[in-house]
Amino acid sequence: MVKLSVKDMDIETGGIHIAILNKKDARKLDLHSGNRVVIKKGKTEVTCILDIARSPKSVAEGQLGLFEEVIDHLHVKNNDKVNLEFTDKPKSVALIREKLFGKRLTYEELYTIADDITHDRMTDIEKTYFVTACFTKGLNNEEIVDLTRAMVETGSKINFSSLTLDKHCIGGVPGNRTTMIVIPIIAAAGFIIPKTSSRAITSPSGTADTMECLAKVELTEKEIRHVVKKTGACIVHGGSMNLAPADDKIIEVEHPLSIDAEGQLLASVMAKKYSVGATHVLIDIPMGKSTKANTWAKAKHLRKMFELIGRKLGMKVKVIITDGSQPIGFGVGPLLEALDVIAILKNDSFAPQDLKKKAITMAGMLLEMTGRYKDGFKVAKEILESGKAFKKMNEIIDTQGRLNHLKPGKFRLPVHCPKIGRVKEIDNEIIAKIARMAGAPTDKGSGLFINKKAHDLVKKGELLFTVYTESQFKIDLIKEFLKKNNGYDIH
Amino acid sequence: MVKLSVKDMDIETGGIHIAILNKKDARKLDLHSGNRVVIKKGKTEVTCILDIARSPKSVAEGQLGLFEEVIDHLHVKNNDKVNLEFTDKPKSVALIREKLFGKRLTYEELYTIADDITHDRMTDIEKTYFVTACFTKGLNNEEIVDLTRAMVETGSKINFSSLTLDKHCIGGVPGNRTTMIVIPIIAAAGFIIPKTSSRAITSPSGTADTMECLAKVELTEKEIRHVVKKTGACIVHGGSMNLAPADDKIIEVEHPLSIDAEGQLLASVMAKKYSVGATHVLIDIPMGKSTKANTWAKAKHLRKMFELIGRKLGMKVKVIITDGSQPIGFGVGPLLEALDVIAILKNDSFAPQDLKKKAITMAGMLLEMTGRYKDGFKVAKEILESGKAFKKMNEIIDTQGRLNHLKPGKFRLPVHCPKIGRVKEIDNEIIAKIARMAGAPTDKGSGLFINKKAHDLVKKGELLFTVYTESQFKIDLIKEFLKKNNGYDIH
Repeated sequence: MVKLSVKDMDIETGGIHIAILNKKDARKLDLHSGNRVVIKKGKTEVTCILDIARSPKSVAEGQLGLFEEVIDHLHVKNNDKVNLEFTDKPKSVALIREKLFGKRLTYEELYTIADDITHDRMTDIEKTYFVTACFTKGLNNEEIVDLTRAMVETGSKINFSSLTLDKHCIGGVPGNRTTMIVIPIIAAAGFIIPKTSSRAITSPSGTADTMECLAKVELTEKEIRHVVKKTGACIVHGGSMNLAPADDKIIEVEHPLSIDAEGQLLASVMAKKYSVGATHVLIDIPMGKSTKANTWAKAKHLRKMFELIGRKLGMKVKVIITDGSQPIGFGVGPLLEALDVIAILKNDSFAPQDLKKKAITMAGMLLEMTGRYKDGFKVAKEILESGKAFKKMNEIIDTQGRLNHLKPGKFRLPVHCPKIGRVKEIDNEIIAKIARMAGAPTDKGSGLFINKKAHDLVKKGELLFTVYTESQFKIDLIKEFLKKNNGYDIH
Repeated sequence: MVKLSVKDMDIETGGIHIAILNKKDARKLDLHSGNRVVIKKGKTEVTCILDIARSPKSVAEGQLGLFEEVIDHLHVKNNDKVNLEFTDKPKSVALIREKLFGKRLTYEELYTIADDITHDRMTDIEKTYFVTACFTKGLNNEEIVDLTRAMVETGSKINFSSLTLDKHCIGGVPGNRTTMIVIPIIAAAGFIIPKTSSRAITSPSGTADTMECLAKVELTEKEIRHVVKKTGACIVHGGSMNLAPADDKIIEVEHPLSIDAEGQLLASVMAKKYSVGATHVLIDIPMGKSTKANTWAKAKHLRKMFELIGRKLGMKVKVIITDGSQPIGFGVGPLLEALDVIAILKNDSFAPQDLKKKAITMAGMLLEMTGRYKDGFKVAKEILESGKAFKKMNEIIDTQGRLNHLKPGKFRLPVHCPKIGRVKEIDNEIIAKIARMAGAPTDKGSGLFINKKAHDLVKKGELLFTVYTESQFKIDLIKEFLKKNNGYDIH
């Protein structure tokens, strides 16, 4: 163990923990670039990968250069004293190697892995081996349940000690913002429903991105408890809490290859629900060409698995298989989606009926799952159309912290129909790509507003959709892209 | 594309290419930490992962902070102007994803992957997916041949336009320095044998580390051509040349989990031989508890595969399965091994006979493979014992650049036998661990000198081996370790 003086390098890596030692100190300590070290400040510690400074200008002898992620984690500043010691590969590495050779992992072993991932003791390479081992060798049902539990136990848990409802959608359909309608309906009916959502990774918007057009979504655990206690619900970004943190870190390394192993998908979804103490969970599996469940067989298999894992974890899980063949609602992109949601909650006549109907159906199913209602659909519809859900949504927004200074992108590109016919299909992936090119989800007001949906009759020259963006440059890029494909299949 | 001014950060990562942008520039260019960018200087370019500087003190607007690996690659210095542009995932990523789902890759596809790896266009995570995809889904014989060719074609090749001999050992046995005896014998017989060797990764010494006690091993391609032209041979570090560079970069990500997929082992070995234009190759597969081929079945299977892949690549390959049950020679560690080699070449009576006999056997087999000799063993023995091989070795050493100022570690720890009996086995891994604890391969003079080998009769108190090291601290550490295990199985 050696004492060193912190030098804040003022550089962020986007997640990787890096510490830098002067080459003379490194030689003295027999440490090399790429070595794994533990840096300690009081009781807080963090595992870092070592880089070596070749000149004292960047990091002098006796100093330890730290990147921002490490500075933030240890709560240190320039010239603070920290301890550094060499550390070997964590125990998980040997376990992952065994999994790669086909071993079945126990709860204790999966806990060790989740714990090492949570505390950043593993490198990206090692985490990637874990993902591929699980993907290629598979996780059996026991392992999925054990991994779920391990990811929950190595993070924070919230418990509302009463019936707690939750919903989840496995994604793949632009505009599918049922959460922001289902949650206020359920909360207005008097149930607890603390919803944590994700931000977009490859899609044009996640529920957290869309909700952020209306309210703050990055809340502390304490703030969330307060919101749920006061309103019965919340719609927040799950990433800002510490719920199953290993899951988020596993997803980071899955992303580069879009690996989405079934076992990890199940564990990931169930861990988030389990860590908020959900007792009744409704899961939406959209089925379509570009969704995870692109055949009936796959959708039904996933349904079976979700229900099975739920049962093993003591949760009541119901799965709804929905139409994933085209975008839902009119808006695609954070703000344009938020406007759809508000229109539905306000009972505006121009609100998208597909999104409204889907949300009522789901809310109704959740209500029936509690055993307190026979015709959930009717009850949910009444709560929505009476304005009670809108009132509840405003309560949630105000308690989380209202935000509403946003405008749709000021550069607009209307896209017209090239021929007469009927819209057969709309390609979710193309629509998502156009919305992302327009700037979603970073530019909240960017995206698409869709005028024609599948089965609609269209004439040549009729408006199919409008692109909203913040720059003429992006309009030009999209125009070029649209020459090849506008996502519409018209017959 | 944007022009930026280089700031040398004076930090080395040990291989990862990092560039740092000020956060204001990053925002302007819509770039984020973790993004992949290409940095160009004239015709040279390098793909980097982006970090973000939060203050102008570390990297100011208009500047681009570069770590040493990037500085060296682009040959730039402070304030040089470079171009930066965003780049997407390379095409390989989609191919690797397909392999992970079991697809058979074509030559063109493997070439794309080898090319992206060679030019550092892939992240560690992506390379790890490639390794695991090949490991779990396997490579068929065609793929192994294609990967070998692809790794060779994406690097430099050397060709001596005549019969070219080579040898390789798949490793696992400390002290096994046959190369440094076989090469001078073969060259003294008049054949071309350009040997590239590796440095130790997890072992106490690689042939390149041991040879470096006697001569320079980091030679340029031009220098190597000169050495081989003049002496018929060389014993150099392969890493300093550009032979199948993708292979070295694949090995880097295999190392953290000690993954050693058969397909990649075969491709790795054969690529190095193929890229120096070898026509006749002898491969040594030591068989023992701690070697890659730890059963007869595995050793024979590997032999079959090496011969098969060789045939498909138009090389004559012969495999010798040897005793890998204990260290070979007396010395373990760079200098102590080099002393064994010199003793054998000088016909000293105290030279280790096991290493001598193995080297003569191998040299004899190589001579016979050329078709010009019937009793290769006899010819090789004559060349060695007549001093011709020693003369040739001196020629090679002088042409590569003689080095000989090294001394064995000055701190010594004699390890004595605890009881009377017979040495049944010596554990290669324990011996290797002790030598590494002593400082090998970094401290050239550190390691072990072994006095008792398997089958030897020993009395209580007799010297088993001596540890050589550069510090008392290491002696103390090793003493502690030896209490648990000294590697000797005495019955």
